[in-house]
Amino acid sequence: MTLQTLKWIPLGGLGEVGKNMMVYEYEKSILVVDCGMMFPESDMHGIDAVIPDYQYLKDRKDDIRGILITHGHEDHTGAVPHLVKEFPGVPLYATPLTRGLLDVKLRGARYSETPLHTVPTNAVLDIGPFKIELFRMCHSIPDNVGYGLTTPAGLVVHSGDFKFDHTPVDGHKPDFARLADFAGRGVLALLSDSTNAEQPGITPSEKAIEPALENVFRDADGRIIVATFASLISRIQQVINICEIYGRKLAMAGTSMVDNVKMAQKLGYLSIPEGMLVRLEDTLKMKPNEVAIMATGSQGEPSAVLARMATGKHPVINVQKDDTIVISAHSIPGNEEYVHRIINRLFQKGANVVYSPLARVHVSGHASQEEQKLLISLIRPKYFIPVHGELRMLKAHASLAVDLGMPPDHVFVVENGMPIAFTDGVAQQLERTPGGYVFVDGSGVGDIGPTVIRDREVLSRDGFILLVLRRNGDGHLAEPEIITRGFIYMKGAETLIKAMNGAVTDALKNTNGATSETAIKDKAAEALSKFVYAETRRRPMIIPVLA
Amino acid sequence: MTLQTLKWIPLGGLGEVGKNMMVYEYEKSILVVDCGMMFPESDMHGIDAVIPDYQYLKDRKDDIRGILITHGHEDHTGAVPHLVKEFPGVPLYATPLTRGLLDVKLRGARYSETPLHTVPTNAVLDIGPFKIELFRMCHSIPDNVGYGLTTPAGLVVHSGDFKFDHTPVDGHKPDFARLADFAGRGVLALLSDSTNAEQPGITPSEKAIEPALENVFRDADGRIIVATFASLISRIQQVINICEIYGRKLAMAGTSMVDNVKMAQKLGYLSIPEGMLVRLEDTLKMKPNEVAIMATGSQGEPSAVLARMATGKHPVINVQKDDTIVISAHSIPGNEEYVHRIINRLFQKGANVVYSPLARVHVSGHASQEEQKLLISLIRPKYFIPVHGELRMLKAHASLAVDLGMPPDHVFVVENGMPIAFTDGVAQQLERTPGGYVFVDGSGVGDIGPTVIRDREVLSRDGFILLVLRRNGDGHLAEPEIITRGFIYMKGAETLIKAMNGAVTDALKNTNGATSETAIKDKAAEALSKFVYAETRRRPMIIPVLA
Repeated sequence: MTLQTLKWIPLGGLGEVGKNMMVYEYEKSILVVDCGMMFPESDMHGIDAVIPDYQYLKDRKDDIRGILITHGHEDHTGAVPHLVKEFPGVPLYATPLTRGLLDVKLRGARYSETPLHTVPTNAVLDIGPFKIELFRMCHSIPDNVGYGLTTPAGLVVHSGDFKFDHTPVDGHKPDFARLADFAGRGVLALLSDSTNAEQPGITPSEKAIEPALENVFRDADGRIIVATFASLISRIQQVINICEIYGRKLAMAGTSMVDNVKMAQKLGYLSIPEGMLVRLEDTLKMKPNEVAIMATGSQGEPSAVLARMATGKHPVINVQKDDTIVISAHSIPGNEEYVHRIINRLFQKGANVVYSPLARVHVSGHASQEEQKLLISLIRPKYFIPVHGELRMLKAHASLAVDLGMPPDHVFVVENGMPIAFTDGVAQQLERTPGGYVFVDGSGVGDIGPTVIRDREVLSRDGFILLVLRRNGDGHLAEPEIITRGFIYMKGAETLIKAMNGAVTDALKNTNGATSETAIKDKAAEALSKFVYAETRRRPMIIPVLA
Repeated sequence: MTLQTLKWIPLGGLGEVGKNMMVYEYEKSILVVDCGMMFPESDMHGIDAVIPDYQYLKDRKDDIRGILITHGHEDHTGAVPHLVKEFPGVPLYATPLTRGLLDVKLRGARYSETPLHTVPTNAVLDIGPFKIELFRMCHSIPDNVGYGLTTPAGLVVHSGDFKFDHTPVDGHKPDFARLADFAGRGVLALLSDSTNAEQPGITPSEKAIEPALENVFRDADGRIIVATFASLISRIQQVINICEIYGRKLAMAGTSMVDNVKMAQKLGYLSIPEGMLVRLEDTLKMKPNEVAIMATGSQGEPSAVLARMATGKHPVINVQKDDTIVISAHSIPGNEEYVHRIINRLFQKGANVVYSPLARVHVSGHASQEEQKLLISLIRPKYFIPVHGELRMLKAHASLAVDLGMPPDHVFVVENGMPIAFTDGVAQQLERTPGGYVFVDGSGVGDIGPTVIRDREVLSRDGFILLVLRRNGDGHLAEPEIITRGFIYMKGAETLIKAMNGAVTDALKNTNGATSETAIKDKAAEALSKFVYAETRRRPMIIPVLA
């Protein structure tokens, strides 16, 4: 490596490249950008969360100069508690609201050794060999930033999650001036958010949902419950504003919603009229048409607040006839089924449900194609790397760049763990390093791998049969005992179980005291497996135990 | 009941009302319309298919006069083999292509006792007290019909799956004349397809995908693989047409695709130029730009043809650089994740992938709001019952009817198993009957219930721990043996397992030969469960066995 090499590596994310974490490396100095978590995919059985595999960083512990967090959403901050525990002493830089959300998240976590720096959205930071110029970009949360990273190898612009919103809820528009300034200086590479690269046109402003919210508040005779993500601070402000117009009190449901609102209000990121906020319990004593509630659970998760309200399992609120429920969030892929199910349940309860596409009660926080093109045209980078998206989105984003006239060999579509080195102004793809993800299950991080997931898959399909074999006094085998779970309802399947017993007994009739334990178990399991498949076309896991 | 009562009951369907089966009953005569199957939802672990619960029919076996099938898609025909086996001798009526698809499906099934009637799309049938007038409606398959059912209680119009397509692939437009004729006679009730009741506007014609297909065939230098449902006969014809224009040979991949094409060609529903069809194997010897392939697996199912081609597991075709893959189907809710994953895999292989929304290579076969309004306006029914949809869609469809001026109390939104009786021209909702669904798992139908599914859910989350307890000669317990699957990777977890052993041994230290088996097992399981949760925050199923 020459002195002029900047290396960039996308890490983590479930196939979404660089979504959750990225690494910039110049000589022996490393900067980490974001550290988020993802919802597991539906066949990652029992996994609670997925976080980046940062083995690469563990091997270079002493080189890490700082951690930058672009904004306060889970997919960019969710794994920060793991990261700061792993690398105590590494300073962390975040804008005020992002810092506030991290404080809520880290409460109780031991991160006292992490120097936390709250920085303004237009900060210029000097961290080791990196000069980092923050710039505001719009998203569905305030204080969201991108970075211009200058090293001797050149200037790289990192968009962060963004959209070009000309009427953002907090009034803060994108920092076009700094973007233009970068362009004037000459940009080596642009890394840009690909989430909506399949969507033509322009993503509507956050403001676009207000007419639909207005309709709801104007027409509703009963309570209004707005479900959204707890970190969509801008959305919360919009609901506050409309509550003020229509004279409704507002209560928060869901711990993260309550905590975030408290923090954001304290920091001045939510402007809430005196007396508007009430406790959830207090709404029960009020007239329904004077009540609005904001709740978590917009993804239909069965254990979350909205689902519990819909199924009568919430301690305070039970959805009733004449309630109006607004689903003000998009469904994360894989959650559509749950979201649809909860909408149906709410209708069953007699509630009115307002959701996309019936009404525009949510807009995306990510740029669509025309905005993505605008950013490329503004920045005029030498190289373009689409990030934050599955391969299909990166491909679509790359096509846009080529359509704008960028040479195809100056556009890099890479996967997680595939570094790109910029040396003396020329980009080159390096060999792959580990850069995937790690499962979090309960309190375990990384202890569940493919074998366990495969077993869970088999168990989830057809359950298991436990075959307990006992020897008689004479060394011969007594009639086996069969226990099943998830295979068949044992009461009512006596005939089948008896036949299964018979099949095992048959298979073992020639064994005696001299037959090895392994041979007995294998013979029995094989015979049982064959018999069960022939009878039921199912393949439960079979566990023979010789007692 | 008076002599003038017609009863209607929607049965089956996963919350989609009357999607898979409906029953019309007049005096002691029953007509069954459709008998389809559904894909299980993602938390119906291990279930292969879901079919209607037709207990209602079993109790009235002798009253069933006939089975009508509207069209040849799985969600309307998939459970016919079960139905004809259950009710031998009941005649079945289907239009020619539908009959052909049923023949393919029933091949090998014992249904020789079912009188099968092939009827034209404008047939008028007299079945018991029912006069049934078929009328053509457009959908994504030819020979799709709706019904006008006349009894002394009045005329009910049953739309079937439909869209108003003015340029259908087979040239057969909806039978507007018969619809108008019904309206002239006065329609007691309209039952209409709600699938797209959340979609504003008009669903584009099947023809609308042809420009996108043209682009693909014009630009592709390599093979073209079009993935779709095997029963989308119209789509298959469209691909044949474009292959002819661009001089490509066409091969079929997937048994159902091969069988359906053979049958549809024989019956004259596919017009295939002489010499165009080739065997899949033969395409390997041809130039890539002379080859097109139609394949099943458009839902991304890991074991289906497309997924196997993408992962190198298909015996003949391995997706390679320069292949163009067209995903010409929508994702059934719950399958989005799989479909996205396969698109990413195909890109990884270096293929070009063409899919919605990047190109219009699929259109829905169901009417959108403006077409739904048109049907209501054409038919001018006294009562309106939205069917074929989840509750949220029915609600949206009902709103449309009310917007058109129908009195709200003449619009019935019901769930499966909720009958409506039309007596002397007045509709009334009756008490609920069983009308849900039944699970098919392997060769078992209805033997898997909620208990087994719940066990599978627990097993899929955290697996199980098998705790084998043995008594020593003196009646005391030896050190327990622990076997786990799906809980933790046992190699590498020796310390934890040893500690688990210790926890159990501790819990049992005061037991002796006099302690009951149940007490020993309960004590051990409880101690282990507590210990494991404290250590791992996981809740595996624990099975104690006393050997």
